Amino acid sequence: MARVYNFSAGPAVLPLEALQEAQNDLVDYKGSGMSVMEMSHRGKEYDALHNEAIANLHELLGLGDDYQVLFLQGGASLQFAQIPMNFLGAGQTADYVNSGHWAAAAIKQAQLIGNVNIVADTQKDIPTRMPALADIRWTPGAVYSHITTNETISGAQFKTLPEAPTPMIADMSSDILSCPRDYSKFAMFYAGAQKNLGPAGVALVVIRKDFAAKGNISIPTMLRYQTHIDKNSLYNTPPCFSIYMITLTTRWLKKVGIENLYRLNVEKAKKIYDVLDASGFYRGTADKAYRSDMNITFRTPTEELDALFVKQAAEAGMKQLKGHRSVGGIRASIYNAFPAAGVDTLVEFMKDFEKRNG
Amino acid sequence: MARVYNFSAGPAVLPLEALQEAQNDLVDYKGSGMSVMEMSHRGKEYDALHNEAIANLHELLGLGDDYQVLFLQGGASLQFAQIPMNFLGAGQTADYVNSGHWAAAAIKQAQLIGNVNIVADTQKDIPTRMPALADIRWTPGAVYSHITTNETISGAQFKTLPEAPTPMIADMSSDILSCPRDYSKFAMFYAGAQKNLGPAGVALVVIRKDFAAKGNISIPTMLRYQTHIDKNSLYNTPPCFSIYMITLTTRWLKKVGIENLYRLNVEKAKKIYDVLDASGFYRGTADKAYRSDMNITFRTPTEELDALFVKQAAEAGMKQLKGHRSVGGIRASIYNAFPAAGVDTLVEFMKDFEKRNG
Repeated sequence: MARVYNFSAGPAVLPLEALQEAQNDLVDYKGSGMSVMEMSHRGKEYDALHNEAIANLHELLGLGDDYQVLFLQGGASLQFAQIPMNFLGAGQTADYVNSGHWAAAAIKQAQLIGNVNIVADTQKDIPTRMPALADIRWTPGAVYSHITTNETISGAQFKTLPEAPTPMIADMSSDILSCPRDYSKFAMFYAGAQKNLGPAGVALVVIRKDFAAKGNISIPTMLRYQTHIDKNSLYNTPPCFSIYMITLTTRWLKKVGIENLYRLNVEKAKKIYDVLDASGFYRGTADKAYRSDMNITFRTPTEELDALFVKQAAEAGMKQLKGHRSVGGIRASIYNAFPAAGVDTLVEFMKDFEKRNG
Repeated sequence: MARVYNFSAGPAVLPLEALQEAQNDLVDYKGSGMSVMEMSHRGKEYDALHNEAIANLHELLGLGDDYQVLFLQGGASLQFAQIPMNFLGAGQTADYVNSGHWAAAAIKQAQLIGNVNIVADTQKDIPTRMPALADIRWTPGAVYSHITTNETISGAQFKTLPEAPTPMIADMSSDILSCPRDYSKFAMFYAGAQKNLGPAGVALVVIRKDFAAKGNISIPTMLRYQTHIDKNSLYNTPPCFSIYMITLTTRWLKKVGIENLYRLNVEKAKKIYDVLDASGFYRGTADKAYRSDMNITFRTPTEELDALFVKQAAEAGMKQLKGHRSVGGIRASIYNAFPAAGVDTLVEFMKDFEKRNG
C-alpha cells in the first residue's frame, strides 16, 4: 500500500488508523457477521456506534446536555436553507457576514426565505480576508447572526470570532475541532463532515435545545431541527456508515487531543506560509491577519506555472493541490488528519520548484 | 469470517462480492493512494465511479436520456416533502394512494404543502393489502399521482402497478430492480438505497427531464430537482462512498440480470409462503393477492412465541427477523442480495420451531 499526500479541500484525508479499522471490519463488524453498512439502524451494534459518536463530540466540543449533537443529510448546502426555514419568520431579520464564497451561498438561500441584513462584506476583497470585528454592524433584534469561521476557497479564517448580541450561528465546515474554541457562544453551528470529521454524506449540526424549540413548526418534518432532536438523529434511516466513520475519527481526535492538534495545525501551516513569505516567486492570496491554518492558498507568477506546479507535485505523490475551480491557483488543504511529513515534503518541493522556475 | 443470514428490512444485506471489493480497496483505491472516502468529488477517479453508477442504472432500468438518474440525500423521507414542494402548487391537487405506513408518511408531508386527494385507502386493512386497481378513483387534472409499490412494514406489494391518467410518481424504496418493470410509465420514482441498491445515506431519484422542468423555482436551491439535474448530482458534495457502493452493487445486478433476480426472488419468497400456507401455526399477515416478494410478514400464535422465534433464530445465525416496532410480529426481508441458502435455513428453522412449539 502506497498512500499519497492528499491535499484535497474535501472530501479530504482521514486518519489512517480509522481507515484501517474500517477496512478490517468491513465485511464482518466485530464478529456480528454483518458489515456496518448492512445493520439495522435500530439494532444494538449500530446504536452503540451512533451514541459513541455523539458522546465523543459532546466531550471534544466541551458542551453539555443543553446542546444536541445531530447528524443530518444534505451537507452544509442544505443547512443554508434549513436555518432560515426554521428561524427566519415573516417580518424578521437575520444578520449575515459575507466573508466569501460559502458565506454568500448561505446568504442566497436565506434571501429566498426572508429578510437578510449583510452586516459586513469582504467577499470580493483581494487579498482575501475576513472583516475586522469592529467593522461589523449587527442589527439589534436580529433573530440570528450567521458567520463562516473559515472560507475554504479563499483561505481566510477568523482568528478571533465575532460576537453578536443576537443568537450566533456558524458554518464551521472547514475548521471545526481544529483549534480550541468556546462553542458555547453559539446557538448553533454546523459542518459538512468531509473535511475534519469523516467522509461526505453527513453534516454535523450542534444546536442549543432552547434555540431549536423556537423553530417554525409548519415546515416539512424532515427539515425541522426539533424532529431530529426528538429522535436522536434516528427519525429516518441515518447515513450509518458515514456516522460510524465519525465514531472512528472522533476516537482518534480524543486520543490526540484538541490542544495538540491545534499546535500541530499551526506548525504545519506556518511552515508553508514561511516559504511564501521568504519567496519572491510565490504569492499568498490571503491577508496575513486572516491566514487560514486549514486551507493555504497561493500562486506562482503565472497560471501556466500554477498548472505545472500542480502536475509535478502530483507526480511526486502530492495530490489535489489545484485551487478551487472558481478562483484557480494552488490550494494546500491541511486538515487535522493531514500528516506533518506531507507538509515537509511539500515545503521541499516548493523550494525546489522555485529554484527550477524562478 | 462468519457471515450471518441478515433479514434486516434496511439497511440490509449487500452482495458479498461488493463488500469484499470495497474492503480490498478501502485504504488505497486501485493504486490512487487514497480511500474513495478521501477523494475530491470533482476528481477523475470519483467521477468515473459516479458516472458508472448512473450508466448502470440507466441500463438496468431500461431508460434513455429523457430521464435523469439522481443521487440525493435525506432518503425517501425527504422526498416525501421535496415532491410536493416542487410540483404541488397553490390551487392544485395531487392524488395519493394510501396503502400503508410509508404511503401515509408521504401523504402527511404533502398535506403540509398543498391539496391532497386520497384516491384509495387500505392503510388499516387486516390482512394487509394494496387497493384493487379498479377501486382507485383518480382525480382528473391532478398534477401527479403517488403510489408506494411495496409496503416494507405490512409486507404488501402491488402485483400489477396502477396507471393513473396523470403523471405517476412512485416510492419504490423496497422493491426497485427486484423484478422486471416498465419504468417509463413513471414521471418520477425514488428509493432509499439501503434495501436493494446500497448502504443508507443516498436516495436514488429518477425523473423525466420534462417533468422536472415544471418544478417550482422559488424553493431552496438544494430542494429543486432541476438543480441536481443541471449538475449531474454534483451541485454540492454528494455522499461519495455510498454512491461508490451503488456502483459496485449495480455491477453485480448487471451480472446476475434482472430477469434472473426476479425468478430467484419469487422462488425465495414462495418457499417461505409455502410454509405459512401448510401450517396451522404460522399466520401470514398480508392478503395472498398482494404478498410481497421482498418483506414476508407473519406471526406465530402468540407474541411470546414471536419473541422466542426471533431470539432462537438469531442464535441459529438468522438475524434481524423482528417485525417493525409499529406492528410487531416477524418479518423476513429477502431483498436481491439475500442468498437462497438463507431462505432454506429459515424454512427448516420454521418447520422445526413449529414442531417444538405447535
